[in-house]
Amino acid sequence: MPKGILVKILTRNRNKFEEAKLVLNEYGIDAIQVPVQVCEIQSENLFEIAIFRLKCALKHIPPPIATEDSGLFIDALNGFPGPFSSYVFKTIGCDGVLRLMQGMVNRDAHFESVVAFADRDLKVHLFHGVVNGVISEIARGSYGFGFDPIFCPKEKPQLTFAEMTREEKNKISHRSRAFRKLAEFLSASET
Amino acid sequence: MPKGILVKILTRNRNKFEEAKLVLNEYGIDAIQVPVQVCEIQSENLFEIAIFRLKCALKHIPPPIATEDSGLFIDALNGFPGPFSSYVFKTIGCDGVLRLMQGMVNRDAHFESVVAFADRDLKVHLFHGVVNGVISEIARGSYGFGFDPIFCPKEKPQLTFAEMTREEKNKISHRSRAFRKLAEFLSASET
Repeated sequence: MPKGILVKILTRNRNKFEEAKLVLNEYGIDAIQVPVQVCEIQSENLFEIAIFRLKCALKHIPPPIATEDSGLFIDALNGFPGPFSSYVFKTIGCDGVLRLMQGMVNRDAHFESVVAFADRDLKVHLFHGVVNGVISEIARGSYGFGFDPIFCPKEKPQLTFAEMTREEKNKISHRSRAFRKLAEFLSASET
Repeated sequence: MPKGILVKILTRNRNKFEEAKLVLNEYGIDAIQVPVQVCEIQSENLFEIAIFRLKCALKHIPPPIATEDSGLFIDALNGFPGPFSSYVFKTIGCDGVLRLMQGMVNRDAHFESVVAFADRDLKVHLFHGVVNGVISEIARGSYGFGFDPIFCPKEKPQLTFAEMTREEKNKISHRSRAFRKLAEFLSASET
């Protein structure tokens, strides 16, 4: 296990940070939260958003640093809310999305996460995580954040993400999958 | 009336351009469409979005140049879809917004437009236009674009924007109000 690696994670979302840190810790990697706002590009491509934000951050914060961007993509809504999930959550919330899904037979959806990481040499590395599932009929659970109460992952279709502890969610979530790839990359780089 | 002023309008949306051009022409100002994509910032502030896009554009295109950003802000949905109107239109469309508004008593909404203009000396000027109105119960009309079929302006509450010709819409629309301010500014600058 690599010793003494410390990754700065650029996010103002404490929940996101805690999920990411928990994964990195499994690999003996430490993380600190850098809760600053940097510019974000308006794009429908999570990779583009993550890279742009990372490059903005690097103007102010020395590497190694990681940013993460994620979204909930609902098939029947043409991918909505996608990269704009956090704005959509803040405005219409889980209730709004459930209203849009009322009577929809196809409830397939996936969460996607892109971690952009800049190493000490300012080289950018990208890590992608996906979890497939369905939109529940009603919001359930109190763990997690964002659209967690209305998403049931394929691996545990009877539960929403918000009915799982952080540890349970981290076994299968899009975010944990992307950060696990980062952790494996860092572990391999340091050996 | 100023002669020989030509404003480049940066937009890939032909309808937007035609609306803007029609207003500028009233003042004897000519306009050409520059249908290129430049980077867009993800922000909830139309002014910030317009300035950012203008500054990106200026890296590639010489001034004078104008960009326009607009959005539909619905009170009962906490301002949704706001600056993300074009993405929301592409994904859930008018039908999605009407579904979100089903049974809502408060149907108040407004369209907002921000025109950012860079003059020959690269100085940035901002012009703001707003039109208040309500969200209709059903989509009506075939003129215009975007959320026009579900927005009834206060000035003509019996009609949606999509039931008005471009000329009629231009008498009261957010976009025409912002571009009219630009036209007046240009006319005054040239005299």
